[in-house]
Amino acid sequence: MSSNDCIFCKIVAKQIPAYVVYENDHCIAFLDINPVSYGHCLVVPKQHVETFADATPEVISELFKCVQQVAIAICKATNAAGFNVVINSGEIAGQVIRHLHVHIVPRYDNDGLTIDKQPSTKLDEAKAKQLVEKLQHMLKS
Amino acid sequence: MSSNDCIFCKIVAKQIPAYVVYENDHCIAFLDINPVSYGHCLVVPKQHVETFADATPEVISELFKCVQQVAIAICKATNAAGFNVVINSGEIAGQVIRHLHVHIVPRYDNDGLTIDKQPSTKLDEAKAKQLVEKLQHMLKS
Repeated sequence: MSSNDCIFCKIVAKQIPAYVVYENDHCIAFLDINPVSYGHCLVVPKQHVETFADATPEVISELFKCVQQVAIAICKATNAAGFNVVINSGEIAGQVIRHLHVHIVPRYDNDGLTIDKQPSTKLDEAKAKQLVEKLQHMLKS
Repeated sequence: MSSNDCIFCKIVAKQIPAYVVYENDHCIAFLDINPVSYGHCLVVPKQHVETFADATPEVISELFKCVQQVAIAICKATNAAGFNVVINSGEIAGQVIRHLHVHIVPRYDNDGLTIDKQPSTKLDEAKAKQLVEKLQHMLKS
């Protein structure tokens, strides 16, 4: 998808409307039109970047400073006692719009959300050791 | 919880073992001992910061640059086609350890995870307008 066809680029360019709650030179934040909780908000870099993995360190840095500011304000405005920050990176992870976006999901008592309630297993030590070796080698600084 | 009682501070200080995959001056990344998918990893700032909302802009910036690097490596190492990044901020959002940590959850076909499959509603326009006004006022730059 080129940035010309990108719905979030159109929101950045004010070509289509959105419930914008904040913007600066780097990012724009607006309400999700299909909220999973009251105050559910998206923060996106103004520059068209397809996924989290594709963003430059500068984009990452500005984006998450903005996410923090907006998340704090949302909790104050909605009286949410906490929130989840979620990125879906890649189609398999639930990314629908191919422009990096960060979800801020305010949380409330008995909201029924399961973001933090995924079924887990006990770490397999043999597989873990193999993976750690591989990753340490790849990430060697 | 003071940093003396903090399990992640102890991992940072190498007082308790962990499957560390990467560290630099600012952050450390290690495998989650109760993974929700193969390669599930946590990235934490070395400095004790309780929640995402409490972190300084510098901590945020270094943390997410590290999250990106580690996420890219995990996908290569595990052949995951995508991943979720998740922060649980506050007890209500599922935060158990009171030291800021970012989950990287690699995703696979038919993995059964629902991070990105939360039930959503249509945005209530009247409530949205009220909330936007409130947030714009709070976030005015």
